[in-house]
Amino acid sequence: MASIKEIEWDVFEGLSLADKKPYLERGGGDAMPYHTLFAQQFDRSLLERLTALANRIRFINKSREGALYLKGVLAHKRAMLYFSQPSSRTFLSHLAACQILGITTGSVRDAATSSEFKGESREDSIRTFSSYFDMIIMRSPEQGLAEKMAWELSNSSRPIPILNAGSGKDQHPTQALLDIYTLVRSFENKGGLDGRTVTFCGDLLRGRTVRSLSYLLTNFRDVKQIFVAPKALRVPDDVVDVLREKAVDFEITEDLQAAVRVSDAVYMTRIQDEWDSSKGESAKIDTSRFKFGAQELELLNPDGVIMHPLPRRDEIATCCDRDPRAMYWRQMRNGMWIRAALIAATFGYENEIMNCGY
Amino acid sequence: MASIKEIEWDVFEGLSLADKKPYLERGGGDAMPYHTLFAQQFDRSLLERLTALANRIRFINKSREGALYLKGVLAHKRAMLYFSQPSSRTFLSHLAACQILGITTGSVRDAATSSEFKGESREDSIRTFSSYFDMIIMRSPEQGLAEKMAWELSNSSRPIPILNAGSGKDQHPTQALLDIYTLVRSFENKGGLDGRTVTFCGDLLRGRTVRSLSYLLTNFRDVKQIFVAPKALRVPDDVVDVLREKAVDFEITEDLQAAVRVSDAVYMTRIQDEWDSSKGESAKIDTSRFKFGAQELELLNPDGVIMHPLPRRDEIATCCDRDPRAMYWRQMRNGMWIRAALIAATFGYENEIMNCGY
Amino acid sequence: MASIKEIEWDVFEGLSLADKKPYLERGGGDAMPYHTLFAQQFDRSLLERLTALANRIRFINKSREGALYLKGVLAHKRAMLYFSQPSSRTFLSHLAACQILGITTGSVRDAATSSEFKGESREDSIRTFSSYFDMIIMRSPEQGLAEKMAWELSNSSRPIPILNAGSGKDQHPTQALLDIYTLVRSFENKGGLDGRTVTFCGDLLRGRTVRSLSYLLTNFRDVKQIFVAPKALRVPDDVVDVLREKAVDFEITEDLQAAVRVSDAVYMTRIQDEWDSSKGESAKIDTSRFKFGAQELELLNPDGVIMHPLPRRDEIATCCDRDPRAMYWRQMRNGMWIRAALIAATFGYENEIMNCGY
Repeated sequence: MASIKEIEWDVFEGLSLADKKPYLERGGGDAMPYHTLFAQQFDRSLLERLTALANRIRFINKSREGALYLKGVLAHKRAMLYFSQPSSRTFLSHLAACQILGITTGSVRDAATSSEFKGESREDSIRTFSSYFDMIIMRSPEQGLAEKMAWELSNSSRPIPILNAGSGKDQHPTQALLDIYTLVRSFENKGGLDGRTVTFCGDLLRGRTVRSLSYLLTNFRDVKQIFVAPKALRVPDDVVDVLREKAVDFEITEDLQAAVRVSDAVYMTRIQDEWDSSKGESAKIDTSRFKFGAQELELLNPDGVIMHPLPRRDEIATCCDRDPRAMYWRQMRNGMWIRAALIAATFGYENEIMNCGY
Repeated sequence: MASIKEIEWDVFEGLSLADKKPYLERGGGDAMPYHTLFAQQFDRSLLERLTALANRIRFINKSREGALYLKGVLAHKRAMLYFSQPSSRTFLSHLAACQILGITTGSVRDAATSSEFKGESREDSIRTFSSYFDMIIMRSPEQGLAEKMAWELSNSSRPIPILNAGSGKDQHPTQALLDIYTLVRSFENKGGLDGRTVTFCGDLLRGRTVRSLSYLLTNFRDVKQIFVAPKALRVPDDVVDVLREKAVDFEITEDLQAAVRVSDAVYMTRIQDEWDSSKGESAKIDTSRFKFGAQELELLNPDGVIMHPLPRRDEIATCCDRDPRAMYWRQMRNGMWIRAALIAATFGYENEIMNCGY
Repeated sequence: MASIKEIEWDVFEGLSLADKKPYLERGGGDAMPYHTLFAQQFDRSLLERLTALANRIRFINKSREGALYLKGVLAHKRAMLYFSQPSSRTFLSHLAACQILGITTGSVRDAATSSEFKGESREDSIRTFSSYFDMIIMRSPEQGLAEKMAWELSNSSRPIPILNAGSGKDQHPTQALLDIYTLVRSFENKGGLDGRTVTFCGDLLRGRTVRSLSYLLTNFRDVKQIFVAPKALRVPDDVVDVLREKAVDFEITEDLQAAVRVSDAVYMTRIQDEWDSSKGESAKIDTSRFKFGAQELELLNPDGVIMHPLPRRDEIATCCDRDPRAMYWRQMRNGMWIRAALIAATFGYENEIMNCGY
């Protein structure tokens, strides 16, 4: 089996994601990731095992006895949440996932209050902080830092797993997992996700959630993807290229209502103007036709779902919030369950939980 | 029974506190609050049950076995502390209360590091953060926000209780509870709180603690209230109106020493100059006669108590700190016990704890 | 036995460290500290008991059952981490130590978000925050504050132990403990620490770690100390005076390579330019000869160790990081174990852990 300990950093860094994947597994043949760095690590089989595990954890947690059982599963582990980029939502979701499994946590949330001001490299910081914990959950504006730390730690005398909670503009694998989990759950008693039509709408250029989810959907059969965005924020070529290569049916349009009419799921996203240059180009884009409101709600089929990674501004009107098809609040909570599943699996507790007596 | 799910927000918002009260109960007939939003929810019977429960928890916690029992009571629950207004004291006190009962916690303490910068509404923030927890303990400068969230969550697919840890200038119900608890405890082996005289001194105009405690004291029989303040910071009319309406004996004066001479409890407060306009009007007020020092200590009766919500500046001289009648440190700790009692009761564990074998 | 409750603050403050020591013990004759304020509280016997306890905890924690046993030892206690000076490393290390023993924690990390802005004295803040906890672990830029609080709390109606996690420029006793622990462990199967040569290099003037470790080493037999620093940052006279008084062999030099050749341990330190005046005098010092790199690595004996309190800048080249003699990462983790040992001993659990069945 490929071992990340037998490869130099320069070589590893140069590999394609597909070639990196085996280096990141737990070993022992269960194919679960040890380090979770990018969405491309998850094929359909892993996705199905993780959603089953998330469902199991959610069910066990319903009773007091079950919740207490879960709190014992990883009560001997401690995790560090290293969030050098602000994010309450992703932070709290991972924190809650740890708590469900009994993992105690410590956090570094503000690089400014850390020792880095004393001239320490970020690699040194993370490595020393990691001395005290059994796992690192990290979010960073630096692309590739999670990957570098995964390699560093695996080659140290104290290897521990890294879970990427968002790095730079590129990867946010657990967001993709929770999106897939929400879709799978939404259709699980209605014939499943295969053969469905999923529409993405909003800022498709700069949102990393769209890129990852679009990729993961290619693991399912005959899922059509529709991309609805203003020209300036259109889905980027690399996403489209993957779909072409995999012969996935897709469509690019500016007509949201037409898309909603034929969709099973509508995934709305926010204009990501934090990536604007100082000129504030987003403000010049007419986004008025890319919002989901009362009219779209009427067009959506009765079994359809509306999703959003949140936070939202006005992409979805609040009048939709209490419609049973509004899935975005449950989507948030799904993030907690799927992360709990991923963390349990990372530590090798998939089977124990699946087969426990609760 | 009144259910908050059967009433529109606009209607609910317009009700009097007395009329809102039944909508906030747990149901099941035990009258304990599900949402704790304002001090007026607590009548004498509830106050006595909560002080009894707080005493019980304090006692159980004395032994290691007892403390471990308590840590199991709510070990299956998780709470979010959402403090968008800085407050270490109230934060730590609620945190400790949760920890005593085994509740694990997550916190948002600085609105600036949260997702709100991305243009999200505060309601959305709280609702999504709440996805991960079983209770929200919140402090906010916005009057009415706790109430709004209580209604929102009760009408969502995942209702969870809200505990108001201070909202705007108006309500801070757990502060009022801890004050009452401290008074009840101080006199419990000395004939009780009925018939006592309680003096409030300092900034009676802007301190929400005075307003709430004055109200709760009307639940007891023949408690006389004396208000000592400089004219510019005199007790406001609405407080006085309540006392008149309930035919409570009270007095307004500027003579602290005369008041101390006849008081069983003296409740000192700080000048709340954070509410000043830019003109800094507080600095122009002569507050020199509204401080408790060595002289007042001599005048106070041997069974009397000195209280203060803290933080203090120089309203109480440090020479009083080691006097057995100085109750303000114990008052802080009482806050932890009464909050633990309230949280346990909110989740329906009053009877289990009262009747446990410890 | 000496009791801190029978002595006035002014008298206590004026005592020598040696004379203060007995006032800080737990009582009951086991000589362990109740308050841990300065490195001079630890003689050889205590150091050996603490390193044995740390080894024991480290061993027990290896198995899941052992880790869960440890989490029960102090599960009935709660600790406050009061860090008014930024430090992720020391914070997380103490946090992890608490978590290993099952202690739940609360923290105040930023004085600005605390109530102190309301004009409260720091003593009042700490005392009221401490109401909610069973121990205070504190770090502060104010020299002597930990000592003052230890006296205050011991003389209050609710005494709880203080653990000094760094105060001002003078004391950082747990850093000294972890350094000694690392040295003891490094040589424990190689004949022990007695008779060894330890070299200190870097900013020996302003680093409190050097001062404390140099002192603690005098507890061991025939340990020679070599001090290597640029003239402007030379080891201060008070450190040298202690060594002279105790007839310890030492040497002051600017030749790092000569020192490395005869050393068993090389303790590198960073230039502490945060103590510079606005003139930035550190930048004018030639520190190029005071760095450990590939050449020094070759000169070091095969059983030797390289230590560093971290964070580092370029005092140790990263090419040394994977050498088995590079002890600085393990040194960090040792900090967690020795702190867990100290905290367990503070609460009187030394014997229980030493004799448990794991």
